[in-house]
Amino acid sequence: MNEASPVIRYHSAHRGKIEMHPKTSLDTPEDLALAYTPGVAEACRAIVERPELVQTLTNRSNTIAIVTDGTAVLGLGDIGPSAGLPVMEGKSMIFKKMAGVDAVPLCIRAESADEVVDFCKRIEPSFGGINLEDIAAPRCFEVLDRLEKELSIPVFHDDQDGTAIVVLAALENAAKLRGTPIEDMKVVVNGAGAAGIAIARLLGTRGITDIVVSDSHGIVDPSRKDLNIYKKTIAETTNPRNISGDIAEAMKGADVFIGVSVCCALDASNIRAMAERPIIFAMANPDPEIMPDEAKKAGAFIVGTGRSDFPNQINNALVFPGFFRALLDARTRPSGCTIRGRMSDVKVSAAQAIASVVHPTPEHILPAVMDHTVVAALRNAICS
Amino acid sequence: MNEASPVIRYHSAHRGKIEMHPKTSLDTPEDLALAYTPGVAEACRAIVERPELVQTLTNRSNTIAIVTDGTAVLGLGDIGPSAGLPVMEGKSMIFKKMAGVDAVPLCIRAESADEVVDFCKRIEPSFGGINLEDIAAPRCFEVLDRLEKELSIPVFHDDQDGTAIVVLAALENAAKLRGTPIEDMKVVVNGAGAAGIAIARLLGTRGITDIVVSDSHGIVDPSRKDLNIYKKTIAETTNPRNISGDIAEAMKGADVFIGVSVCCALDASNIRAMAERPIIFAMANPDPEIMPDEAKKAGAFIVGTGRSDFPNQINNALVFPGFFRALLDARTRPSGCTIRGRMSDVKVSAAQAIASVVHPTPEHILPAVMDHTVVAALRNAICS
Repeated sequence: MNEASPVIRYHSAHRGKIEMHPKTSLDTPEDLALAYTPGVAEACRAIVERPELVQTLTNRSNTIAIVTDGTAVLGLGDIGPSAGLPVMEGKSMIFKKMAGVDAVPLCIRAESADEVVDFCKRIEPSFGGINLEDIAAPRCFEVLDRLEKELSIPVFHDDQDGTAIVVLAALENAAKLRGTPIEDMKVVVNGAGAAGIAIARLLGTRGITDIVVSDSHGIVDPSRKDLNIYKKTIAETTNPRNISGDIAEAMKGADVFIGVSVCCALDASNIRAMAERPIIFAMANPDPEIMPDEAKKAGAFIVGTGRSDFPNQINNALVFPGFFRALLDARTRPSGCTIRGRMSDVKVSAAQAIASVVHPTPEHILPAVMDHTVVAALRNAICS
Repeated sequence: MNEASPVIRYHSAHRGKIEMHPKTSLDTPEDLALAYTPGVAEACRAIVERPELVQTLTNRSNTIAIVTDGTAVLGLGDIGPSAGLPVMEGKSMIFKKMAGVDAVPLCIRAESADEVVDFCKRIEPSFGGINLEDIAAPRCFEVLDRLEKELSIPVFHDDQDGTAIVVLAALENAAKLRGTPIEDMKVVVNGAGAAGIAIARLLGTRGITDIVVSDSHGIVDPSRKDLNIYKKTIAETTNPRNISGDIAEAMKGADVFIGVSVCCALDASNIRAMAERPIIFAMANPDPEIMPDEAKKAGAFIVGTGRSDFPNQINNALVFPGFFRALLDARTRPSGCTIRGRMSDVKVSAAQAIASVVHPTPEHILPAVMDHTVVAALRNAICS
C-alpha cells in the first residue's frame, strides 16, 4: 500500500466512506421513550396490524441492499467479499448524494447462485430494493432471473441493467450525431458476460436487429459447442447475417463497437475495417480495448470509455441512483408514482431520458455523472 | 393506528429513524474518481494484498449488524422481522448517538438456529461485530454459542449479555446500599428464557451461590422432566438448597427478586415472605411483575423496573453502546486496546463499571441511559 497515494489517503482519512445517522432527534429521555422502549412497541404493533405501515414508520421504503459475493469486482475479478467493500461504499455514497437513497453494502460469502438468492430472500423484510453488484456471469443471470420472480421488492443488477441502459443512452446520442437511425446500425458487442449479454438484449428491445456478440473465443454463433445457456440464447437471437470467426471478422462493416471485454482487444486495422465514421465505446476497465487517440486516428467518429479522464465517460453511475429513486418512489404509498409499463420498455425510456439531458456533441454525448438533473429525468421517465 | 399519538408521529415524520451518510466529500469529479471507479480499484487491491487493511480503508471496523428473526420482540413475542424494524432502528440510533457505532438493522426471515447462524457467517466480511436481538429462547442460546465459536468477529446477544450485565450493575449498588456482601445474597430469578438464564449464569460468575430460577411451571430443579438442555444445566448449577415448588416457595427468605417474566407474577404476600429489606427488580415489559408502590408498601427496600417512568430503570441500553465500543476498539489496529481477560470476567467488570458511575441512593441505583460517561467507563473497564 502506498500510504501517500490520494486514493489511500481518501479512504483511510475517516476509515471508510459511509456511516449510519439518526434522522430523528434523540436528545432527551422523552425522545428515548419514543424511539425505543417502551414507546416503540406501539410502532411495532401498528405494523403487525397493518403490514404496509412498515413503509411509513421505518426507513425500509428508502433503504436498499447492495449485495455482492465479490466474484467480479470492477475489472479485478474474484477478489472476495471484503476486498469489494470499497466499491460498495462508493456506490452507497453516490446513491445518497445523487438520489437520497440509503444503500447498505452487504458483501457476502456465497458459493452459488442458490446461496445468493437465499440470502436476498432472507433480508427482504428489511429493504425496499436490492442492487446486485459485481457477481460473475453466468451466476448473475440465474440470480437476477430468480429474484425478479421470487421477491416482491425491485431487484436491479447494476452490471447488467445499469450498464445496458447507459450504453443505450450513449448510443442514442451518438446515432443522432452521426445521422443514422439507431435501428439500422450494425453493432458489435465484444464480451458476453453480464454486461455484454444485457447490452445485446436491451439493444434488441430498442429495435436494433444487426447485433453480433463475441467473446474470447470469437463470434457467439449457434454452431459453437462451448456456449452456456445464456450465450446460446444470444447466439439464437442475434447475428442475423450468420457470420462466424474472430473479432476482426465481426468488425468488418460494423457501425458500432461496444467493448465490455479486456484491454487492447482492438487495433487500428479493426477500426479501419468498420463502416464510415464508426462509433467506438471501449469500456474495458481500467484500460480500454483501444486508446481513444488511436481509435480517432484510425477514423473513429465518436469514442467513449469507462474512464473519467477521457471525454464521453460511459458510467453506470448515471443510471442506478435515479433508477432506484423511481423504483422506490413507485412503491411508497400513498404519494407514490406508477411505473410506466413493462420493465424492458422502461429501461429503454430510462436510456432515452439520460440522453435527453444533454445537447450532444462528439466529445460530449452523455451528461456528467454528477449532473443532478439526470436523477429527475430518470424519475419522470420511469414513474408518473 | 392512532396518527395523533406521539409515537406514531415520531416514527412517521421522516419515515423511520435512521439513514446512511457519506463521511467523506463527494462534491467534485475528482472526489468521484477517488471514491468510485477508477480510483477505488487501488483500495480494493490493497485489501487483496493485505486483508487487514479492510479495517483502515472501509467502515467495517466501526460497523455492526443488528440481527433478529423477530421471534421475541420486546414483550410482543413472535411478530416477525418487518414489525421488529422500529426496535432495531431505535437501537441503531442509540448505538450511534451514545458510542459512535454504526449499526445496521437486519431483520431476517429465518426458521431455525441453523439459518440464523448461516446468515451471520455469510455477512461476516462486511461487519466488525454482530448484535443478536430479540431471538426467542432456546434458539438464541444455540445461535450465540455457535457464533462465538464459528465467527472471528465479536458477537453479543443483547437479551442475554446486555440484560445480565445491567442487572448485575443494579445489584452491585443495591447490595452496597443494603450493606450485604453481594456473594451472600439469596437470589430468585423468575423467567428462564434468554434473559433469566444469562442473569443466573453471570450472577454465578460474580460469586453468588444461592440462586433459584423459576419459570411458568415453578422452580427449575433437576427432578423436573420438562426441561430443555439449557434449563437442565441451570437446574444442576443453581438451587443449592434443593427446593422445589412454585414461585411463592422460592421467595421465602430470599433477599433479591429478579423478574424477567410477565406482569403480575408477584403479590404483596410474596414480598412479605422475603428477608428483611428485600430488593425487587420487576422488569417484565411493559407491565412489571408487581407495581413499585405495591412492592414498597409490602416492605421492599429498593425497587427497579424496565420502565423509564419509574425510578431505577434497568435497561440494557446502558450496556450495548459502550460494550460494543470497547469490542470494536479492541480490534482496530494499530491503535486498539486489549480486552482485559476472559469474556465472562469482562462482563462482571462491565457491570461494576456501570455501577461505579453513580453514587447510589435507593431511588437512583443506576446512571441514566443517556449518561455519556457510561460509555467511557465501560470502554476503560473492558479494554485497556
